[in-house]
Amino acid sequence: MTRVFNFNAGPAALPLPALEQAQRELLDFAGSGMSILEHSHRGKHYDAVHNDAIGLLRELLDVPDDYNVLFLQGGASQQFAMVPMNLLQVGASADYVVTGAWGKKALAEAKLLGLARLAGTDDRFLRLPKQSELQLDPRAAYLHFTSNETIHGVQYVDAFPEAGTVPLVCDMSSDFLWRKIDVRKFGLIYAGAQKNIGPSGVTIVLIRKDLVESGRTDIPKIFRYKTHADANSLANTAPTFGIYLIRNVLRWVKDQGGLAQIEQWNRDKATLIYEFLAEHETCYRCPVSPESRSHMNIVFRLPTEDLEKQFVAEAAEAGFVGLKGHRSVGGIRISCYNAVSVEAVLSLLGFMMDFAKVNA
Amino acid sequence: MTRVFNFNAGPAALPLPALEQAQRELLDFAGSGMSILEHSHRGKHYDAVHNDAIGLLRELLDVPDDYNVLFLQGGASQQFAMVPMNLLQVGASADYVVTGAWGKKALAEAKLLGLARLAGTDDRFLRLPKQSELQLDPRAAYLHFTSNETIHGVQYVDAFPEAGTVPLVCDMSSDFLWRKIDVRKFGLIYAGAQKNIGPSGVTIVLIRKDLVESGRTDIPKIFRYKTHADANSLANTAPTFGIYLIRNVLRWVKDQGGLAQIEQWNRDKATLIYEFLAEHETCYRCPVSPESRSHMNIVFRLPTEDLEKQFVAEAAEAGFVGLKGHRSVGGIRISCYNAVSVEAVLSLLGFMMDFAKVNA
Repeated sequence: MTRVFNFNAGPAALPLPALEQAQRELLDFAGSGMSILEHSHRGKHYDAVHNDAIGLLRELLDVPDDYNVLFLQGGASQQFAMVPMNLLQVGASADYVVTGAWGKKALAEAKLLGLARLAGTDDRFLRLPKQSELQLDPRAAYLHFTSNETIHGVQYVDAFPEAGTVPLVCDMSSDFLWRKIDVRKFGLIYAGAQKNIGPSGVTIVLIRKDLVESGRTDIPKIFRYKTHADANSLANTAPTFGIYLIRNVLRWVKDQGGLAQIEQWNRDKATLIYEFLAEHETCYRCPVSPESRSHMNIVFRLPTEDLEKQFVAEAAEAGFVGLKGHRSVGGIRISCYNAVSVEAVLSLLGFMMDFAKVNA
Repeated sequence: MTRVFNFNAGPAALPLPALEQAQRELLDFAGSGMSILEHSHRGKHYDAVHNDAIGLLRELLDVPDDYNVLFLQGGASQQFAMVPMNLLQVGASADYVVTGAWGKKALAEAKLLGLARLAGTDDRFLRLPKQSELQLDPRAAYLHFTSNETIHGVQYVDAFPEAGTVPLVCDMSSDFLWRKIDVRKFGLIYAGAQKNIGPSGVTIVLIRKDLVESGRTDIPKIFRYKTHADANSLANTAPTFGIYLIRNVLRWVKDQGGLAQIEQWNRDKATLIYEFLAEHETCYRCPVSPESRSHMNIVFRLPTEDLEKQFVAEAAEAGFVGLKGHRSVGGIRISCYNAVSVEAVLSLLGFMMDFAKVNA
């Protein structure tokens, strides 16, 4: 079996040990005589996995006791609706900083549900708006932003928007767990699992308990955060296998040395790639402002679209897959989530150097 | 490895060949050098799996062309909300036949969203209301019912409620694909996958296209059936592994001879069990009216709760797991979904005969 170098934008590469464990025990989980897929979500075997996953997440991120850790379904797209359904009281208004395609979608969905304002953006999504450029409503129900934009390759790397006493709500789908963050800065964090954490089909929500308690009660029960918080995410049947695999991935993170080590690798990978691009700018050009560049999704262009097609094809041939940029923007994208190794990046850069020599 | 006899109510037993296939190719799907879990939901490998699953479902059930087959998230509980959000226009009313705990929950959620009436029930959920007992609103937006109630062991086995021109909406979570049905009788069918079809985390929806088109547009985009129908269930990232496993299960169904064979086995299993219960009524007593008894979840009581505890413990010891009745009703429940073999039922009945001899 040859495993390729997987630079997919999501669903994306998973740590091999997490997959190998799943493979080993797929027919017989912990000597129970059945697959984890066949276990009741209310039985002792699954219950241990469920609480292990929550415990590991709390430990790795130092999640304070006054936050709930929830496993939901429907992806970030469902949170685009659930956030305003729960947190936007009748007559209140919410602020949105939009730094790419995902933030734009989140704002559009919120506008269907109540008052939502654009509080800051860059028209071409090539840089993050500065704090001084934000037009914040001090009475907003919350300030929503997207920590990393996968399509446009723009990320809040070291600092986040500040909103005073207004709760910060963050879509961290594509960079959750890329490094340790201070959860206390946020009222609510949500993330589809399919980048750094596990397979598609599970959404992680960290939410401050006062926001759970003050959430709207005039919405369907299944969409209230309180329903899921009160039941430890077992109000209805959880996506058990996805949560099990998240548990395996979180164990792998811990085994590597925790988020400090993961962050170091992620910073090393991004530095290697951006420095390489700068050194080969006749062939590769990153359009994003240097201070706003993503460590997860590194986007760049080649001189022509034909060369970009050739690049993607030759890379795939050489075992580097998932490099085509999103169809809405074109170009090339290197997604290097947690499970993508420094070695994989170095191999890719070797290919890119050869490609530049022949074609530039 | 010893596999136990798994009578879980859901998540439940899956066909061994479907799991074995998943295990074999978990690290390298179809020679692609990566797991199906790591493939993009927009790539050619996953795309083939996705459309294969939809095609198999269409083939096995003869789904007419004017119906969409959707794979959603959030389980039946989310459909309790999505059905009225989409189909219950402002000022309209919907009818609900309630034959157990799940129908009751569906009605409660609908009442939060609009006008919803109880059109028929049995107070103790021990029998299905007859067609003549239903109080139907001929102008209802739809008539909702639950084809099989897992907790109370009540099922519409051979006939369904009739509602004239009012669209029938059915929660088939726990008996979808137990036999072939005439999809044309329904406006909308939904089913959580975790009984007969696959793992938890995927919801199947079959919906007549005119209901998609006439669905409400004043609701969040992510909750509109039209959003998912227009995008072949890829409007956002699908729960790819769950759909992959459903594909494996549907292939197994086809390999067994299709739904005719599956139905025969299911009828055989239920007949064996109910006849056994009748022959051993000093020990085992089924409270459900004979004509309303479920072929999927067979519930019964023993003379005392202590004996029931002993039964569950000794059965588990002998390799028969998942037999404890739902905590809200007590007693014993044999869930025998499609992947539970006739042989597994015969073995269980052997145990039950011995238990009755010793303890009755």
